[in-house]
Amino acid sequence: MHDQEHIRALTRQIRYWILASTTRAGSGHASSSLSAVELTTALLFGGFFRADPHNPAHPNNDRLIFSKGHAAPLLYSLYAAAGMVSEEELLSLRTFGSRLEGHPTPVFPYAEAATGSLGQGLSIGLGMALNGKYLDNLPYRTFVLLGDSEMAEGSQWEALQLAAHYELGNLVGILDVNRLGQRGQTMYGHDMEAYRRRVSAFGWDTFLVDGHSLEDMEHAYRKALIPGRTRPAMIIARTLKGKGVSLIEDMEGWHGKPLPEDDFDRAVADLGDVDKSLVGKMAHPEDLRPAQYGPKTADAPVYSPGEKVSTREAYGSALAGMHADYPDMVVLDGEVSNSTHAASFAKSYPDRFFEMFIAEQNMAGAALGLSLRGKKPFVSSFAAFMTRAFDQIRMSRYSEPNMVFAGSHAGISIGEDGASQMGLEDLAMFRSVLDSVVFHPCDAQSTDKVVREAAELEGITYIRTLRGKTPVLYGQEESFPPGGSKVLRESGDDAYTVCAAGITVHEALAAYEELLAQGIAIRVVDCYCIKPLDRETLLRSGETGGVLTVEDHYPQGGLGEAVCSELSDSATPVHSLAVGKLPRTGKPQELMDYAGISAKAIAERIRSLLA
Amino acid sequence: MHDQEHIRALTRQIRYWILASTTRAGSGHASSSLSAVELTTALLFGGFFRADPHNPAHPNNDRLIFSKGHAAPLLYSLYAAAGMVSEEELLSLRTFGSRLEGHPTPVFPYAEAATGSLGQGLSIGLGMALNGKYLDNLPYRTFVLLGDSEMAEGSQWEALQLAAHYELGNLVGILDVNRLGQRGQTMYGHDMEAYRRRVSAFGWDTFLVDGHSLEDMEHAYRKALIPGRTRPAMIIARTLKGKGVSLIEDMEGWHGKPLPEDDFDRAVADLGDVDKSLVGKMAHPEDLRPAQYGPKTADAPVYSPGEKVSTREAYGSALAGMHADYPDMVVLDGEVSNSTHAASFAKSYPDRFFEMFIAEQNMAGAALGLSLRGKKPFVSSFAAFMTRAFDQIRMSRYSEPNMVFAGSHAGISIGEDGASQMGLEDLAMFRSVLDSVVFHPCDAQSTDKVVREAAELEGITYIRTLRGKTPVLYGQEESFPPGGSKVLRESGDDAYTVCAAGITVHEALAAYEELLAQGIAIRVVDCYCIKPLDRETLLRSGETGGVLTVEDHYPQGGLGEAVCSELSDSATPVHSLAVGKLPRTGKPQELMDYAGISAKAIAERIRSLLA
Repeated sequence: MHDQEHIRALTRQIRYWILASTTRAGSGHASSSLSAVELTTALLFGGFFRADPHNPAHPNNDRLIFSKGHAAPLLYSLYAAAGMVSEEELLSLRTFGSRLEGHPTPVFPYAEAATGSLGQGLSIGLGMALNGKYLDNLPYRTFVLLGDSEMAEGSQWEALQLAAHYELGNLVGILDVNRLGQRGQTMYGHDMEAYRRRVSAFGWDTFLVDGHSLEDMEHAYRKALIPGRTRPAMIIARTLKGKGVSLIEDMEGWHGKPLPEDDFDRAVADLGDVDKSLVGKMAHPEDLRPAQYGPKTADAPVYSPGEKVSTREAYGSALAGMHADYPDMVVLDGEVSNSTHAASFAKSYPDRFFEMFIAEQNMAGAALGLSLRGKKPFVSSFAAFMTRAFDQIRMSRYSEPNMVFAGSHAGISIGEDGASQMGLEDLAMFRSVLDSVVFHPCDAQSTDKVVREAAELEGITYIRTLRGKTPVLYGQEESFPPGGSKVLRESGDDAYTVCAAGITVHEALAAYEELLAQGIAIRVVDCYCIKPLDRETLLRSGETGGVLTVEDHYPQGGLGEAVCSELSDSATPVHSLAVGKLPRTGKPQELMDYAGISAKAIAERIRSLLA
Repeated sequence: MHDQEHIRALTRQIRYWILASTTRAGSGHASSSLSAVELTTALLFGGFFRADPHNPAHPNNDRLIFSKGHAAPLLYSLYAAAGMVSEEELLSLRTFGSRLEGHPTPVFPYAEAATGSLGQGLSIGLGMALNGKYLDNLPYRTFVLLGDSEMAEGSQWEALQLAAHYELGNLVGILDVNRLGQRGQTMYGHDMEAYRRRVSAFGWDTFLVDGHSLEDMEHAYRKALIPGRTRPAMIIARTLKGKGVSLIEDMEGWHGKPLPEDDFDRAVADLGDVDKSLVGKMAHPEDLRPAQYGPKTADAPVYSPGEKVSTREAYGSALAGMHADYPDMVVLDGEVSNSTHAASFAKSYPDRFFEMFIAEQNMAGAALGLSLRGKKPFVSSFAAFMTRAFDQIRMSRYSEPNMVFAGSHAGISIGEDGASQMGLEDLAMFRSVLDSVVFHPCDAQSTDKVVREAAELEGITYIRTLRGKTPVLYGQEESFPPGGSKVLRESGDDAYTVCAAGITVHEALAAYEELLAQGIAIRVVDCYCIKPLDRETLLRSGETGGVLTVEDHYPQGGLGEAVCSELSDSATPVHSLAVGKLPRTGKPQELMDYAGISAKAIAERIRSLLA
């Protein structure tokens, strides 16, 4: 390791920056940052971490993720010590417009991902490690700084399982066991064996260290970074919260608090000699490039109008058919790939498919990690189970992600399996993600198209698919861009406009026939893109009597509220049909009747609106 | 144990019912049910399980939760063997209107909770066990049937940690390790040590058994049920999926599939002699009643108009002040009780407060378990982190729950901590829960009132609180029922109506002053109840120029879309201000300006709408 005295001096500088920046800000997690100083200083500047701070995007840089995101002052102080953050900037911590936010975000170039919701960093790291080992074929290592309190989060244990299963010897966890959570001691305090035993049982190599001993850290990093390892490594460090500042060291009540101005000088005096001019140097990464990859071409699926195909099946076929055009795609699924049909992709391209088992939180986090390493993940499970990963999805938005989520088995119309398997709130969830795009195609052809559209989009895209087979309505020549819709039935005498999506498009078309036979013409709009909506077509519906939305989804947050909102400043009345009753087991058609979203219900409602 | 021959004969009957019901239904998880037959038959009818099937509500019944909810056919078949379900009813599996739904729901009286989204049952069981040991002081045991695939879910490991921490010797997990998941082998196959090692490392006693050996089961249950245990117990059973039916035993490709009609007779022949007339008897529970509990009274908090108090603080004070009136309350918090102020309750009533650590999924599941045992949980964390538990919240709705969630630190206005800590989609989430009530009080007084309202409500209620202090607006004599609102400013000349909630009420009041000085009168409505909305007051706003909603929340699924939806069939225009930009670190006021939801933004928008 580099000269230990130099490293030790750097720790004093870094502690100084942590205190100075948080005291100046009047907020920030000083004590949580102080406990991890040796852990990270030894890593970054002890010759172990190989990255070029002048080139944060280098594909073979080692990666460091702050899963304990509230230790952001430490992250910033480390890079101040590396000479990449000036004193002036450091003292701008937590001010509006600063790159140094309260919790790390990608406005800070050395924050690998936005963190701060605990228990998510190991999954993100897992994704980056998967990329290094199985996709880019690069030897970079991914380090994840973990807090002890956040090991209560189940998502961490999902990541621990998957990392061992995938033999990610290039993933290293650094567990800062400082004993104290936010409001008191953690479940295990300083019972280091409790951590070692559990992590070891999950198939990781473990290294117990005194987290403030540079010798221990050096020794542990050496062992954890032996090349050719197939087991992930966890360095489990006994530390003290607030280490280095006698006023707060190992004391309760200091979580999330900076040193007050009046105590600052005394605290700094505890540190001893602080030399702000020292610069920490990182080892260089090998200048390697990601492996070249060109998927073999495949036939794009072809659909004939009237053919009955489920949109979930079309999703799988689309993935397989388009991969050659989108080599950066990877596909993840949560143990249901024969149901979501992600298996179609897995069959053709097994090396680009990752089985993520029944652990949706980790799947979403790993997808973010892959996305941040330049891949385009398509992530599937049942729409209902996407709710398991809402916090991860929420957080990923803050990381400049580029991912597609595909939720199958939408709605009450899945039938006999019953409520637990029905996605009835997924549109609300994905619509709430800033700038998301939400597709709900009604047939195989439009599904194929929107999957390709999704491949072209940045940010977070959601595609909602159905369990049952639906007839193909569209020809190959049609296009389905975001913000569009398809007017399927239209005349000069349309009494009302029915806006539908997914299964309800087919119900609306049947209602159209029923009403036509009674001399009532309705316009039928396929809102295959629920966000953003096709405003122009919706405004034009003002020439009819009004809009009736129909969705296989709960009443809040979905198509109905989206349309209401879009037309809220127009005079066009909007009424909505949705699933407003407790769902239950039954056949698809009887459930749609029960819920009042079937052709019968649509026709009935139109007639009553016109009465 | 009861006569082993009798038990063995019951297993044949139960296997018969599993096959018959699923084949008749044409769907259902036969193979997953078959693997757990001995496990559950030995438990229920071997003298271990103490419950009165004629009185499912008996407070001292043992509890059996099917975490592997897809084994519902087994649950129903067990109770057919107990004489509580007729053959006719059994053959109604998965039909519309049947008590025997595709996954268990409480329409079936022996389903403790609705399950089917994997990895949730152990948390629910943990809640029931907490109740038995620490609240009701009853010796009933809670058993949770678990699948191996679902042990990938992190939520299970949250439950494992918490159960050991709380010394729940009255909680027994039964892990059906049948090796096969939905689309193939699980991560560990039949590596029984991999399960034992991990569960044991988490502090549980483990018992490895041959899951088809009645002797093994008897032996294990005896050991797991020794009275006075303080460690939870996990029986880890090596089983075969589809056991007993040679056509499908231990074979891939049979997940979720019934035996086809053509194979039914051959499969039944494999079972040997089936005697449908046999009845399994359960041991009786001790006829004990829950411990009496009368909380000591406390002073209700008193607020003076103008006093500055945060609504999160008022939440905590309300809990403490009201407990004597609501003795069934219990309070759960996720390691942030000094921030959510649940700590105020914990301080006065430590025996009714449960620290659930940083594990929100388990917290929500445990709350359901407590609710199902007659308690009224108040569950708190940051609003942002409630998203971690969306699947558990979604599922709990299907179990006739009675719970209150309180999410603090709502909105961009929390300030410097930044995006990760900001609840900006929580209204969308909780509004999407069927029949939920959603409160967002703007001052301490109304917070105190709505917390008491929540105590009176059934179902799921959400209370959203703020980080910062706000002035008290209301007097003690005011009431804040669900479905109400407060008109804070009103005149005969109101040019527009501003509907606000939480922090934006105060911004709206400031905008009111600014506009008044410019000769513009606006109506200001405090929508302290966002669901259900005060329709009458909203309709009346039609007499003004229109409605402008303002919320510290993303644009989708919150107050704005709720109001748009409520007024969608009226001519009243609705416009909305919400957080439509990426949130960031900053001071509360500068962030509200940045996001366009501040007083300045409101006044500006009103002027432009009137221009």
